Amino acid sequence: MSPKPMVRPGGRSARVQESVHAAVRELQAELGREALTVPLVAARAGVTPSTVYRRWGDLQELLSDVAVEHLRPEAPPVDLGSLRADLEAWAEQFLDEMASPPGRAYIRDALLGDPDGSNAGQCSAYAAEQIDVVVARAAERGESAPDVERVIDRVVAPMMYRILFRPGELDAAYARALVEHALSLSKP
Amino acid sequence: MSPKPMVRPGGRSARVQESVHAAVRELQAELGREALTVPLVAARAGVTPSTVYRRWGDLQELLSDVAVEHLRPEAPPVDLGSLRADLEAWAEQFLDEMASPPGRAYIRDALLGDPDGSNAGQCSAYAAEQIDVVVARAAERGESAPDVERVIDRVVAPMMYRILFRPGELDAAYARALVEHALSLSKP
Repeated sequence: MSPKPMVRPGGRSARVQESVHAAVRELQAELGREALTVPLVAARAGVTPSTVYRRWGDLQELLSDVAVEHLRPEAPPVDLGSLRADLEAWAEQFLDEMASPPGRAYIRDALLGDPDGSNAGQCSAYAAEQIDVVVARAAERGESAPDVERVIDRVVAPMMYRILFRPGELDAAYARALVEHALSLSKP
Repeated sequence: MSPKPMVRPGGRSARVQESVHAAVRELQAELGREALTVPLVAARAGVTPSTVYRRWGDLQELLSDVAVEHLRPEAPPVDLGSLRADLEAWAEQFLDEMASPPGRAYIRDALLGDPDGSNAGQCSAYAAEQIDVVVARAAERGESAPDVERVIDRVVAPMMYRILFRPGELDAAYARALVEHALSLSKP
């Protein structure tokens, strides 16, 4: 996990962040989410509780930061040779990850401890960056491609809305239908 | 405010719910959201704190229930004589309410204290019911109308996704463009 952009890599602040995030991940795995407290996390990370409170405010804000790190994409989208194939593969994988029980828990955590909306904005920026890679590749191939914001409205938003608000079957066919729809509109 | 469906209207349970919800609304207005505690709410409502804990679990779940009541539509969508006009008016009003600071706070509260997703599902059901009225009216007029789930994917989801995840300008023109897009697809 790399530190957040505003933290200088390798600095003390980055080391504190990394050890506190690691402590949260370990304790979540060992004890479960409900058992976490700031003093427990601080003890495991080898820092004082006041260091955690000073930097994160409370447990919910810390969990939100850790969740955003989990939601950071690990690699650029695969290149399958066409816009449609790349976007379908990306959307299917995104839906698969976000609709899974851990994905849902991270989205929830990211939103909850995020009073100013910056972590939610970061989650959305991750998706936009991935789509931007797919769209730029399509343009290089000479394919006509939709605008990134349109893909967000027509592919990302329906999946995330249904994950949060409208429980029900969300499968790869649903992701592909959204892509089909987004692409049909980019044609002249 | 009418009680939730599972509560018998006029019964003791409904009276407790109404007085606790009213106490939350009053104290939120008087002291602000951050100052609320279960003992304060219970005292104002004339019940014991344990009544509140037994019924709602914790403050966050209570705030989620109150938020869902705030998000309940107060009237059916206006009838302006055509599907497009009705859907535009509904979408503009929905965006206006949900993107306002109180709207955002209610959406957030509704999601936060909602471990099983039932309150989020209720918010989405409210929107679906309103769209259903608009679509049924259009069918009576002999207009061709899109499926309710499609309107949710193409109009409701982008608005809610951007409210939660992608801060920026959200205006009536954006709502109308989403409706235009949803309707262009329902034509043969």
